[in-house]
Order: sequence, then C-alpha cells, then structure tokens
Amino acid sequence: MTVGAWIVLSAACAQPRDALPSWNDGPPKKAIVEFVSRVVTTGGPDYVEPAERIAVFDNDGTLWSEQPIYGQFAFALDRVKALAPQHPEWTSKEPFASVLKGDLKGALAGGERALVEILAATHTGMTTEEFDRNVREWIAAAKHPKTGRLYTEMVYQPMLELLSYLRANGFKTFIVSGGGVDFMRVWTEKTYAIPPEQVVGSVGKTKWEMRDGRPVLIRLADVDFVDDKEGKPAGIHRFIGRRPILAFGNSDGDQQMLEWTAAGAGARFLGLVHHTDGEREVAYDRASSIGRLDAALDEAKVRGWTIVSMKDDWRTVFPK
Amino acid sequence: MTVGAWIVLSAACAQPRDALPSWNDGPPKKAIVEFVSRVVTTGGPDYVEPAERIAVFDNDGTLWSEQPIYGQFAFALDRVKALAPQHPEWTSKEPFASVLKGDLKGALAGGERALVEILAATHTGMTTEEFDRNVREWIAAAKHPKTGRLYTEMVYQPMLELLSYLRANGFKTFIVSGGGVDFMRVWTEKTYAIPPEQVVGSVGKTKWEMRDGRPVLIRLADVDFVDDKEGKPAGIHRFIGRRPILAFGNSDGDQQMLEWTAAGAGARFLGLVHHTDGEREVAYDRASSIGRLDAALDEAKVRGWTIVSMKDDWRTVFPK
Repeated sequence: MTVGAWIVLSAACAQPRDALPSWNDGPPKKAIVEFVSRVVTTGGPDYVEPAERIAVFDNDGTLWSEQPIYGQFAFALDRVKALAPQHPEWTSKEPFASVLKGDLKGALAGGERALVEILAATHTGMTTEEFDRNVREWIAAAKHPKTGRLYTEMVYQPMLELLSYLRANGFKTFIVSGGGVDFMRVWTEKTYAIPPEQVVGSVGKTKWEMRDGRPVLIRLADVDFVDDKEGKPAGIHRFIGRRPILAFGNSDGDQQMLEWTAAGAGARFLGLVHHTDGEREVAYDRASSIGRLDAALDEAKVRGWTIVSMKDDWRTVFPK
Repeated sequence: MTVGAWIVLSAACAQPRDALPSWNDGPPKKAIVEFVSRVVTTGGPDYVEPAERIAVFDNDGTLWSEQPIYGQFAFALDRVKALAPQHPEWTSKEPFASVLKGDLKGALAGGERALVEILAATHTGMTTEEFDRNVREWIAAAKHPKTGRLYTEMVYQPMLELLSYLRANGFKTFIVSGGGVDFMRVWTEKTYAIPPEQVVGSVGKTKWEMRDGRPVLIRLADVDFVDDKEGKPAGIHRFIGRRPILAFGNSDGDQQMLEWTAAGAGARFLGLVHHTDGEREVAYDRASSIGRLDAALDEAKVRGWTIVSMKDDWRTVFPK
C-alpha cells in the first residue's frame, strides 16, 4: 500500500460513526449532537474550554431504572433480611416485622419514620469499609424484582452512549443524585465509567475512631446533606465548584439542578428523561410517588428544555 | 538520517530529565522518586492502577506560605477595610475597630469569637458569585506583607514540581485543606493546575433563592463542615470517596489525614514539610500558633514518614 492510499484509508476510517446508535433520529438526538458540536468548535461563538465542560446526571430514573422501588431501598430491604438473625426482636417490631414478611406496604405504613428506621438499621453503625463491602456484595448478586436482571444491567443504554459521547468530546461527567453517595460510588465506576470522586449524593455524618491502632470512620445516623431539589445546586457548588453546562434529570427533584445549570452564561443543554414506555420499562410522570415529573415537565415545555420520550426517542432501553 | 539513527536519537531524547530540579538530592527526593517508580511499574508488586493514584495535599504551609498570617485571613482583613464605608459603626465596634486601625493583636484579643465575626462579615451574606468575584479581585492584587509578592507567588516551587511529576505519572492531585473551599477554588487551577472539583476544604451552608427569576446561592454564616484534623479523613471520604496513596501536610492538622492514608493496603507515601528555613522562609514547628507541627512530627519519626526539611532539602523555595 502506498502512503497516499494509507492516508486516504485513514481518513475514511476516521469518519465519525454514529456515537448514539440507541437513540432514534429525532429532535432530542439532534439537539444533543448540535449542542456538543457548538461547544467543541474552536473559535466558534459557543466554544467552551474543556475544563468547563461539566455535565451532571441524576441517577435514579435518569441513568438506571427506579421502578418499582429505588435500588438503594431494595438494598436496605435485603439488608434487613440479612441482619434479622442478629435481631430476633425484629420479628415483632415494625417496620422490620413487615419487611421480613415481605409486606412492603405494611412496612411503609409507618411513613417517613419507618423509612428512616430501615435506613438507619442498614446504613449506619458500621465502618465505611464494612458498608462498602455490604453494597459490593449486594450489587454483584441482587436481581431486579421484575426483570430478574442485575441492577447494574437495569441501566439505560442510550444514556451510557451519551456519557461516552460526552467524554469523547472532552466533557467531565458527574452524577448528582439524591441517593446516598457511598451506595453509588461502589459501582458507578464499573457501570458508568464515572469514578467515585465524580459522584455527588446525599451524605451522612461519620465519626473518626481508632480501633486497635487503625483509624476507621463510623457511619452515624445523622444525615448531613440531602442532595435533592434545592440541595442539588448546593451539592454542585459544594462538591464540583463550577456550574455545569449540561444537566440531565427525570423528575421534579432535578428541577433546581436544571435551573441552576440554565442560569449560567453561554450555551447550555437541559434534558429530561420522560418515562413514556410502559412496555419496555414503566410509564409514569405526574402522579407517580417515585420519580414524580410534574412541575419540571411544565417548566421544560415553557423553557424549551429537551424532553426525551423513552418510547419514541430510544431505539433500545436496556443493554442487550 | 536513517530510521535507525532516528530511533536511537528519540530514545536519547526520551531519557527522563530531572522532574524535581528544585529538590536537593537527599532522602526525601529519593523516597518520592522510588515510591512513584514502584506504583507505576506494571506487573511489579506495588503497582497501583492509575484510577487509584490519588494524592492529597494540605494547602497552607504545604503548598504555599502560611506566615505571618493565613492568606485567607489576610483576605478577610482587607475585605473589612473595603467594606468599612458601608459600616460606619465599625469604627467603634470590636473587632472591626482594631482591624481598621491595623491593630491585628487588638482585633484578635476577642479570641475565637472575634475571628468568627470577622469571617462572617467578610465571607457570608452575599451570593456565591459575589464572593467569587471578591476573592478573584483580591488574589490578583494583594501583596504578601513581608515579601511584597502576590500571594500566588508565595507557593513552593518544589511542591509545584512534585504536583506536576505526580500528574505526569498518572496521579490525580487533590487539595485537602482546612481553608474555605470557595476561597481556594478561585485560584488553585491557575496556580497549581488543580481544578475546583479537586479541592476539598471547609464548607459553609448556602441558601437557594430566586432573584428576579434567576437562581442564586446565598452564603450563610453556619459552618457546615470543618476540613481539619479528624475532619480531613471525613472530607476525603465525603468528597473523593477513595483512600489516597500519597498524602503531604505540614502541621498537626494533617496528622489524621496522613494516618488515614497510611492505613490503606499497599504502597503508601506520607510526607511532612518541616519549616526549618528562617532565612528563605520562616522557621517554626512545635511552638507556633499557625501551622503547629508537634504530635505529627513525633509520629512521623516513629513511623518513618518522610520529613522534608525546607532548609536542607529544597534548592529553591519560591518560584523565580
């Protein structure tokens, strides 16, 4: 092969193939590609320095499925069962008794207080390393109640492609989720290629302690920071320290994050995943107790944010 | 030139030149280079994946000078002077009256309460963007009281080289400082090539507010998290989410950070800058109220941590 032929062939190979094959051709895909193209075009009016290409994603319902219950809550329920032999009193004490009988409705009859008790019993009182191990073991084995697949397989293929596409264009991708940061960090690197230091979430207090001359951090029951709704911009400010240029969510809990992102100068992309696909996933929005999308949906329409219809805009939902 | 000659020449050019020219040849430099070499040697017993090559640095007294007063406190004093016209009552109200007269000792006679009042008046009550601008303007103009240089020139040249050397070897460098995170983030990227999202520090609460339809975060007087002493491991856990393999500090405030780093499995590097150079900088350790190095110095000796003597181990202290 001549050098000339090699150059021609290389150029041909370098033609960009479709980086978002699981997205149907439609307005959302077009808006994403156009936005990225604008901010990476050196010398263009919307060019953004790579260091400022910060993209933030909600997790539950945006990157992975949140129905019928949040993954982290499924973990908590399984931990109650695993810990039950050490707590014989739980068989007659709510909300644990109901959890052990598999009666979720009964368990949650106690409202927020029941929820807090379940979370405290399963998320606190141990070292950060022990908690890490609990999550690691659970996420490697637990199966989604509806599909029987691992939770880390209940992620959205189009969003995985979007994360990769953004990173290939110099973006730094972050998770900004209401979920517990220590629950997510265990598996986000392998699942989304998002390292622990780029995961922002809700945080509990810890206590420094020396155990046999070795320092440990004990997880306390005091919640320190709730990274949801108005907490999301605060979390972005606190943990990332610069304003994102792209934000993706799926519920009213993400509304302030999108507003905060939108309020910066220069090109911005705001996206919402709309769960419209009752066949391939679950159809829900304004009336759902999990991942309610109501006020943010109205605002998205008024302000021209990109609404991604799972049914219409995604060729594939989950990885094959 | 033949291809063979070109390869030979390239190999010659690729010979590593000294990446730490401001470090004298001595045990600390040798220990650093040996540690880095061990953790980057693929297949070696101490190899560490790039993603796990987390290096944390204290800021005050470790990366830049902290004498005669912390840079952030100098900023606060200058802000009191700048704000004085809007606060006529300060001329007769302590600690402000003393600050305005340039009487630092008098200002601090009120102890911690005086300090908190000065910080609250200069660091809170404005939006995060306003505070950002205040710091940006100050850091661009304020001069160090002893040397007359910009504060960002009062950084340690050997440490700048160390940061670059680590990054060239696949490390991710973080600041973990007791200083206010929002004060540091304004200038760390330009000064240390450490981006805002890799700066961990003390944090105040913020309040979300809509002003003329645009969201802002107001800085509140409530301190949320103090990233010092036992707070440093908590900060590392909370913000970074993995255990560093290298930690560098200079005072007892860094002791727990070094202990936490040391407690991980595998190769570790723990370093302390010892301020031994009264001629080129300031000589201080066990008796200093700023940057006291006492218990950590004892522990370093017992545990074989690397103690860097500014006088003996640094060829140059500040950038030329």
